[in-house]
Amino acid sequence: MKKIEHLGIAVKNMVDSNALFEKLLGVAPYKQEEVASEGVLTSFFKNGPNKIELLAATEPDGPIAKFLEKKGEGIHHVAFEVEDIVGEMERLKKEGFTLLNEKPKKGADNKLVAFVHPKTANGVLVELCQEIGK
Amino acid sequence: MKKIEHLGIAVKNMVDSNALFEKLLGVAPYKQEEVASEGVLTSFFKNGPNKIELLAATEPDGPIAKFLEKKGEGIHHVAFEVEDIVGEMERLKKEGFTLLNEKPKKGADNKLVAFVHPKTANGVLVELCQEIGK
Repeated sequence: MKKIEHLGIAVKNMVDSNALFEKLLGVAPYKQEEVASEGVLTSFFKNGPNKIELLAATEPDGPIAKFLEKKGEGIHHVAFEVEDIVGEMERLKKEGFTLLNEKPKKGADNKLVAFVHPKTANGVLVELCQEIGK
Repeated sequence: MKKIEHLGIAVKNMVDSNALFEKLLGVAPYKQEEVASEGVLTSFFKNGPNKIELLAATEPDGPIAKFLEKKGEGIHHVAFEVEDIVGEMERLKKEGFTLLNEKPKKGADNKLVAFVHPKTANGVLVELCQEIGK
């Protein structure tokens, strides 16, 4: 776990929230990207060595839509940058964590990603991410 | 906003959660500190340029005890490092954010801190923090 790569925040309205976080962080979002397989529209802000990723639902049954329905807007997950996602997944499984996917999958922002079940991580949805091609 | 200084995570049992996050992050906590004025015991882990701060309640009516009762364990707040906390508080007030304190107050880890009301920040409890003496 090298650093917090990004913090994912679930939002209802991407236009409104892009404007809000531009005011909060003092910078404009630099990229918007849809991950159709997850039913999510993402928007990224740089913050020094870290990023803020806004997440809006594009499908009523997707994970962000369900999160918003259950918990409302707010912090959705924290993503840690790793060098070897497969090795890190193996390590965490041996340590007793439950992984939500068996293999890394393609996420937003040119990343391979995997998630740790929040029930095994103090209620925190933890994402591991590794840049593709690195 | 220079970077994510730390991510605050509310936990029920500091001993258990210190052990859990040591396994997750691959490093031991480097500091434990009580903030009596907030009714909270904190524990810090380094993660590259960022930190993870575990928060356990020491008083039944404190903010962490209330958070755990209402929402359970999980991510409690995100803290951004700022160079001029008073200036940043003024800037955010002018942008329409509600601050939870009028003046910076002494937080854990040798920091001056101030909080932005989550109702004005997409459901996210945002902390500003500035190292004392810098």
